[in-house]
Amino acid sequence: MGNFKEDIARVKAFVFDVDGVFTDGSITPTADGDFLRTYYAQDGYAVAYAIQQGFRVCVISGGRGALLARRFEMLKVEDTYFNCADKEQALEDFMTKYNLSADEIVYMGDDVPDLGVMRKVGIPVCPSDACSDVLETVRYVSEFAGGRGAVRDIVEQVLRAQDCWALHTKGPTCVSN
Amino acid sequence: MGNFKEDIARVKAFVFDVDGVFTDGSITPTADGDFLRTYYAQDGYAVAYAIQQGFRVCVISGGRGALLARRFEMLKVEDTYFNCADKEQALEDFMTKYNLSADEIVYMGDDVPDLGVMRKVGIPVCPSDACSDVLETVRYVSEFAGGRGAVRDIVEQVLRAQDCWALHTKGPTCVSN
Amino acid sequence: MGNFKEDIARVKAFVFDVDGVFTDGSITPTADGDFLRTYYAQDGYAVAYAIQQGFRVCVISGGRGALLARRFEMLKVEDTYFNCADKEQALEDFMTKYNLSADEIVYMGDDVPDLGVMRKVGIPVCPSDACSDVLETVRYVSEFAGGRGAVRDIVEQVLRAQDCWALHTKGPTCVSN
Amino acid sequence: MGNFKEDIARVKAFVFDVDGVFTDGSITPTADGDFLRTYYAQDGYAVAYAIQQGFRVCVISGGRGALLARRFEMLKVEDTYFNCADKEQALEDFMTKYNLSADEIVYMGDDVPDLGVMRKVGIPVCPSDACSDVLETVRYVSEFAGGRGAVRDIVEQVLRAQDCWALHTKGPTCVSN
Repeated sequence: MGNFKEDIARVKAFVFDVDGVFTDGSITPTADGDFLRTYYAQDGYAVAYAIQQGFRVCVISGGRGALLARRFEMLKVEDTYFNCADKEQALEDFMTKYNLSADEIVYMGDDVPDLGVMRKVGIPVCPSDACSDVLETVRYVSEFAGGRGAVRDIVEQVLRAQDCWALHTKGPTCVSN
Repeated sequence: MGNFKEDIARVKAFVFDVDGVFTDGSITPTADGDFLRTYYAQDGYAVAYAIQQGFRVCVISGGRGALLARRFEMLKVEDTYFNCADKEQALEDFMTKYNLSADEIVYMGDDVPDLGVMRKVGIPVCPSDACSDVLETVRYVSEFAGGRGAVRDIVEQVLRAQDCWALHTKGPTCVSN
Repeated sequence: MGNFKEDIARVKAFVFDVDGVFTDGSITPTADGDFLRTYYAQDGYAVAYAIQQGFRVCVISGGRGALLARRFEMLKVEDTYFNCADKEQALEDFMTKYNLSADEIVYMGDDVPDLGVMRKVGIPVCPSDACSDVLETVRYVSEFAGGRGAVRDIVEQVLRAQDCWALHTKGPTCVSN
Repeated sequence: MGNFKEDIARVKAFVFDVDGVFTDGSITPTADGDFLRTYYAQDGYAVAYAIQQGFRVCVISGGRGALLARRFEMLKVEDTYFNCADKEQALEDFMTKYNLSADEIVYMGDDVPDLGVMRKVGIPVCPSDACSDVLETVRYVSEFAGGRGAVRDIVEQVLRAQDCWALHTKGPTCVSN
């Protein structure tokens, strides 16, 4: 484990929890049995742009529902583990599938179920409003909260460290919605 | 009434108001006659974890609606009093059912209808944004607001005081959604 | 015009704008052509309690929709003017109906269309996040924002000034939802 | 490029991005395949009022959906470019249609896809919570965030500079909803 800026220059993949990371942790049950979740356009832009630049993006969540899956289809995230009871196993599957080593992976989570996975990646990070156990575990705490730019912040930092952020402004234009 | 940290080590049950406690007090009427309420994933995780550890959890609310009931079914909260016009009576029913004494109970509420119940439990607490009458009545004001971690805060404190917080990270994984 | 505390002791009626007063100004169009608005439980409790204590409450809004009307039916607000193009006329109708004088009325609004009405009542007030023209016009700026306690604040202040706030805790219990 | 106050006195048209400008960047997928977006009443009032005063208003967004279009129909915004992959081309179309020069146009955006357009107008501005690349590009950063008054702020400033803000309080009354 070296300097944070040097280490993120080696990152090839992002793994994210959803609730409290892509959202502010808000969950709104609806009459049809699903749940409304609210995402942030700037986060969506960054994730779609990173995928376009060749980064692997994976989402691992204990959550479930058609609406949850749809958000990540829109962002063209190919590797999603929903209704997931064993996040460490999901991480291992993802790493094996793409032959990724721990130090090539950023993991962002915000709560106790993320602690196990965080210890298995090189760059565990979290939003500003993660729970106390997570705040003590990560290498980097974003100044931005979950659902309000924490995802954008870490993606933008990694891509800037690899000189591939905002190379053009025309596309992807529809990634955030 | 002794030291707060010592007193919460004797707690066996949590009783919660809903609006302004599990939510930030927001109520959104919908076309089908029900109301959207928005919950917080970190609160949900803590409540489900506490139940798993053997704590009793009870919800007493003047609110009503199918969506309200469903949230607490998901969290496996067995004792719920909705559309409740007499919170003190509901508390007494709950205490009798499980043979609980006042000093074994935390009650968290945020508004005037909670004042009567608060005077009947050993540990009345509230979110940071409770109304002024409640702020003057409680033994502990969380630094977190309703729907943004007040529930999590008191559950985590009680379980830490009894050495049973975050003993494992694999379950319950789906409790918050 | 005298001392604010003395003046509010003579108040018999509350007149409110809706958007930015009972809500934080958020409007969410839905697929069925209506709009979601989000209200605050502590505001609702105070309004229903004031009505129970005999105060007149009136709502005047340029907004419209079935959902808007339903919120105020729930709170038992009898005098509502929706889709209203002339707020001053609505105020006059309300004053005539109940034989109210200007100094018996609090009006809370947040935006330019409220300026005319504000000049016709004894106690014009506003939320902390009202527009600049309104902030310069009112006699009192609440420390609370629209939809986050501004309504509660002024109702609670007026009722305290008349020694009728929080006289009991058992009812109305369902007023806020 | 001269003094900001002098320059905005020459403005004849407003061009806006939507997500992060008219909203706080929140996007909530719904079961019918559309997205909830939440707007701000004070912003809506200002836009409708500016149109009434003869200003041209244009919206250019990568977003799409029936709900998105409806909001701007309600505000009587005639020139809307949705699902837009080339914002610079849309701007040029709008400028040609109304024979507008660059220095007659305010553009407000918040993210990387707005950078190209911003360089083609005289007065690029942004909300307080725009991304870092945008913050470095604009001539003016509003103290208000997207969806919480940034649009209102720039419209109100331009109209005040041209002595046509809040000339009356009776209309348009229904513009914000």
